[in-house]
Amino acid sequence: MAKKMLPLSKVYGLLEPGPVLLLTTAKDEQTNVMTMSWQTMLEFDPPTLACVISEQSYTFDLLTDTLECVLNIPTVALAEQVVGCGNCSGRTTDKFMAFSLTAVAASRVRAPLIDECYASIECKVIDTSMVDVYNLFVLEGRKAWIDPSISDPRTLHHRGKGAFMVAGETIKLPSRKK
Amino acid sequence: MAKKMLPLSKVYGLLEPGPVLLLTTAKDEQTNVMTMSWQTMLEFDPPTLACVISEQSYTFDLLTDTLECVLNIPTVALAEQVVGCGNCSGRTTDKFMAFSLTAVAASRVRAPLIDECYASIECKVIDTSMVDVYNLFVLEGRKAWIDPSISDPRTLHHRGKGAFMVAGETIKLPSRKK
Repeated sequence: MAKKMLPLSKVYGLLEPGPVLLLTTAKDEQTNVMTMSWQTMLEFDPPTLACVISEQSYTFDLLTDTLECVLNIPTVALAEQVVGCGNCSGRTTDKFMAFSLTAVAASRVRAPLIDECYASIECKVIDTSMVDVYNLFVLEGRKAWIDPSISDPRTLHHRGKGAFMVAGETIKLPSRKK
Repeated sequence: MAKKMLPLSKVYGLLEPGPVLLLTTAKDEQTNVMTMSWQTMLEFDPPTLACVISEQSYTFDLLTDTLECVLNIPTVALAEQVVGCGNCSGRTTDKFMAFSLTAVAASRVRAPLIDECYASIECKVIDTSMVDVYNLFVLEGRKAWIDPSISDPRTLHHRGKGAFMVAGETIKLPSRKK
């Protein structure tokens, strides 16, 4: 998928609508993919966000070790992969291989971009002080990529137990706010 | 709008998809409404979540004072009110009156429910330790309400500068996860 760089100041517009994300991590020869819905923006620019990652997950181990990851945004075309990645562990499954996902080298972190996702945000962990209590990591986006051909991405929004709302139309109202 | 109680264990399914929320607060005779998109779940049950509230907002003052609020979930029918509430301050505007919203008494907190919203979650602030650094409040849901006649709510999902994605269809995939 041909992607272009997205200014970091525009990343909030990708994450605010609450899409399911595929978070990638890497350490040595190991890579992993985790399905994630528990994240929020904290600051606009540089884009800063907080996300919850279970301490039982393989991603938790890789992330606490490397302090780097990529947030990839899938659309409904990847719905089966999204659920598949959420239902197995990277400790026993090579998820890139199992779900036919293509790893592409990132530029600022060692975790890979997922080529099939319409957007990706390369992130560094900048604060782990809330991990002990809430498994909450604070990330800062360092580089972002987007497929410029997709203006209204049909992102997935988890409603629980495998049910996903698929993004519908976009409406525009006059507003003075970001 | 006739609402029924929603078990607290199901609240995550309302918030995970990332809808715009109308957060209400109250102190003495003052009430306020704030439009909000920066929130994430932290725990399933009791439903625990984190949300970012600007320290410049009137809501920040009311919330730090009372440690109570209600998260109300609007649908596209309230799009103009959502933008309107986001573009003025409760210090100078009675938003319930200005935007023809109906305040209904909550049962566990003094902040009101917004009758026109399809769901509402009464919350207590349980942790303010991250407010100084990130304006991040940790809330616990104590009681939740939903309009049982709406199964696929057309919630709003902010994409920035007055653009909102409107919730589309819901798809269901087999999954072992919550």
